[in-house]
Amino acid sequence: MRHFLNIRELSSEQLTHILDTAESFTSVDGQAVKKVPLLRGKTIVNLFFEPSTRTRTTFELAAKRLSADVLNINIATSATTKGESLLDTLFNLEAMNTDVFIVRHPESGAADFIAKYVAPHVSIINAGDGKHAHPTQAMLDMFTIRKLRKDFSYLSVAIVGDILHSRVARSQIEALNILGAKEVRVIAPRTLLPASVEKLGVKVFQDCKQGLHDVDVVIMLRLQKERMQGAFIPSEHEYFQLYGLTPERLALAKPDALVMHPGPINRGVEISSEVADGPQSVILQQVKYGIAVRMAILSLVISPEQNGAAIES
Amino acid sequence: MRHFLNIRELSSEQLTHILDTAESFTSVDGQAVKKVPLLRGKTIVNLFFEPSTRTRTTFELAAKRLSADVLNINIATSATTKGESLLDTLFNLEAMNTDVFIVRHPESGAADFIAKYVAPHVSIINAGDGKHAHPTQAMLDMFTIRKLRKDFSYLSVAIVGDILHSRVARSQIEALNILGAKEVRVIAPRTLLPASVEKLGVKVFQDCKQGLHDVDVVIMLRLQKERMQGAFIPSEHEYFQLYGLTPERLALAKPDALVMHPGPINRGVEISSEVADGPQSVILQQVKYGIAVRMAILSLVISPEQNGAAIES
Amino acid sequence: MRHFLNIRELSSEQLTHILDTAESFTSVDGQAVKKVPLLRGKTIVNLFFEPSTRTRTTFELAAKRLSADVLNINIATSATTKGESLLDTLFNLEAMNTDVFIVRHPESGAADFIAKYVAPHVSIINAGDGKHAHPTQAMLDMFTIRKLRKDFSYLSVAIVGDILHSRVARSQIEALNILGAKEVRVIAPRTLLPASVEKLGVKVFQDCKQGLHDVDVVIMLRLQKERMQGAFIPSEHEYFQLYGLTPERLALAKPDALVMHPGPINRGVEISSEVADGPQSVILQQVKYGIAVRMAILSLVISPEQNGAAIES
Repeated sequence: MRHFLNIRELSSEQLTHILDTAESFTSVDGQAVKKVPLLRGKTIVNLFFEPSTRTRTTFELAAKRLSADVLNINIATSATTKGESLLDTLFNLEAMNTDVFIVRHPESGAADFIAKYVAPHVSIINAGDGKHAHPTQAMLDMFTIRKLRKDFSYLSVAIVGDILHSRVARSQIEALNILGAKEVRVIAPRTLLPASVEKLGVKVFQDCKQGLHDVDVVIMLRLQKERMQGAFIPSEHEYFQLYGLTPERLALAKPDALVMHPGPINRGVEISSEVADGPQSVILQQVKYGIAVRMAILSLVISPEQNGAAIES
Repeated sequence: MRHFLNIRELSSEQLTHILDTAESFTSVDGQAVKKVPLLRGKTIVNLFFEPSTRTRTTFELAAKRLSADVLNINIATSATTKGESLLDTLFNLEAMNTDVFIVRHPESGAADFIAKYVAPHVSIINAGDGKHAHPTQAMLDMFTIRKLRKDFSYLSVAIVGDILHSRVARSQIEALNILGAKEVRVIAPRTLLPASVEKLGVKVFQDCKQGLHDVDVVIMLRLQKERMQGAFIPSEHEYFQLYGLTPERLALAKPDALVMHPGPINRGVEISSEVADGPQSVILQQVKYGIAVRMAILSLVISPEQNGAAIES
Repeated sequence: MRHFLNIRELSSEQLTHILDTAESFTSVDGQAVKKVPLLRGKTIVNLFFEPSTRTRTTFELAAKRLSADVLNINIATSATTKGESLLDTLFNLEAMNTDVFIVRHPESGAADFIAKYVAPHVSIINAGDGKHAHPTQAMLDMFTIRKLRKDFSYLSVAIVGDILHSRVARSQIEALNILGAKEVRVIAPRTLLPASVEKLGVKVFQDCKQGLHDVDVVIMLRLQKERMQGAFIPSEHEYFQLYGLTPERLALAKPDALVMHPGPINRGVEISSEVADGPQSVILQQVKYGIAVRMAILSLVISPEQNGAAIES
């Protein structure tokens, strides 16, 4: 696995291997010294063309816990500095003998584009491109589900909200299908569903009552206010009335259904505080496991052969 | 000591223990390799809701010299990112298995508030909250005084300037009283004194001539221009005429009186260059000792049991 | 060598010693662990008064590969924070027991000024000051030339473009002359040449045809748009017509002439993409060697005695 660009190109075995590797890294978290020397002397570049605190921070932490050096480079989309082209910026960074570019970009396909042109010694990790994919987020979601429910094959999972603009949803749907989930549902108003959404391998519901019935996992999406131009929804208030996850609505799912959210949450918009802070919420566990999953992906793209021996520090 | 939030809750023994630990760290400064492995694998988060170069930098250096990893997170007060609440931001950061949040916030009480809600594995260090407290600054001031004058019990200390808006002054007054200083004086125009200032345990002077008479230490405060709204003082020029520390005015204190200032100094506003750069000024020694003091506090909140063994690298 | 401020004060032996030290560091690049412990525990401060991604990043990488700690301090020229003077900022940073300041400043002479006032334990490296000097860039250019052409004594080198505003050109001219290049040429329109440019030790050409004839190295300069106020050139288009490096124009030089550029390049302004990406271009090798050269300079200003033993990690 040289790059990590999207989920759909990977097999069930490959996804499982990533999850197993991440599992081995969770033990690092419990150590007094939360660090392994696996990537000492490697240079990881956080190349963010879109602002992000959470994803950038978790990658920075993952890299540091692997003992790598981290460069943070934030490029405002407007000013690819001093008139230099994107590719020239990349070629310069790779000439500095760097090892991994973690790329976040507002345009769909940016990570794939970069991967096509980058030198052989550099690996690209897609940290979110436009509405296209956010595969490391999907992997930490899969990790959380597997950690708490073991087997995907008997699970019904509902993804609720702004599917249309969500790179997270696309990657989750792909991962759940590849890992053999029994059923993947999406629940959204028609205006927030992509055309031909069924072809992604999901059952579509516009009504929460039917859609949430008896599911094992409920994944709420953030209402991406900054991505919505025009009138996709009448109002935040009305959205919450129809799709917000309240205790009553959650009661439609299995009694022990997991509640997930990629964060940051909008309390009272897509999820009530009661549910977000309630006993079924595993939202903060997702964040926690995000470090181990990103450590796994970093270690796998840099040194595919070393995964088994990852932890012996 | 799990958190380090303010001075007034600590005993003389506890303050002395911090100063002793800092003393042991001053030797690190003189080593060829200015680094001890004490906090290797720990994650320190600089969580700054207010701009700061000096305090953030000294904490970052202190953490790195203890071999910890440092995350710098600057949150403009306006935009707690994407509508996420302060507490959700905190809960996310603690889910990443971080160890210490160093908090600077424009509102008094912010550090205490955060400490109340934070997970058991996270320690909070108050790096300045509103007008309330700046306890690490006060500790480095105490360290500097003790280093140069040994015993607090015979010392008269005058704090001069904008007491009303100064979190530094509040913490200094508490520390000096707990450590048994003979006398703590504040010197300021009435408009820059808090109501009932005497209750803090100080003698109040509005006139420098009386206030500076025979003191052992003069602590000048920065004129906090950005905090002053309205007409607390007629003009900078007039302020300097009445309260600025000039050689003539300094001559009122003991001949070897120390001149201190938390920085950054406003030359010609609260202090003349002659005094700031003169032989009695220990302003840059305060900065220097700030690293050792912050190393001590970081090491004590993380591993209370290890202080004695701190230096054996 | 306590500071590294400009080229002209150094002897041929000193420049050669820097290049030899850099040569020893190029092997670090090829190691699995691209890190040597030479500067462990040292604190390098990137003190940038002017925005820069490339130079700041290469110094940060160089410092990290030497195992030093790095502080990035960006000071907008307008706001030397809270009214503090430049020297007070410096005195504070040096009180924190830092070791090297890497200084980028928009005013010519800034690095020399700072070097004059800084404490004995701090070294200054000039990372570009106004139109004056950019000596680390010149050294990486010399390294690249020596690496690929061995001996300077038979080389004709042409520097093409905005000589007037270029700190890079000034430092290159000095270095080439000190290292004994056979001939240094500058090629530029009269409006982009400094007065008495011949005194720098160059042959002046306004015409590319004559200037490029039979040279061994062509160094293109970036058209410094942000530095040009008023009408130095009629238009970018016309500039390219007269001075842009095209394959036809490059054919005037020796058949194997090297094409260099300090970056970032303006494609279609001073250089055509065909040439920039062509077989004679060594632009990305310059970037690559920049790390080793900056590692060499960092290690030499900190520990002049250790250069020979630099690599034994």
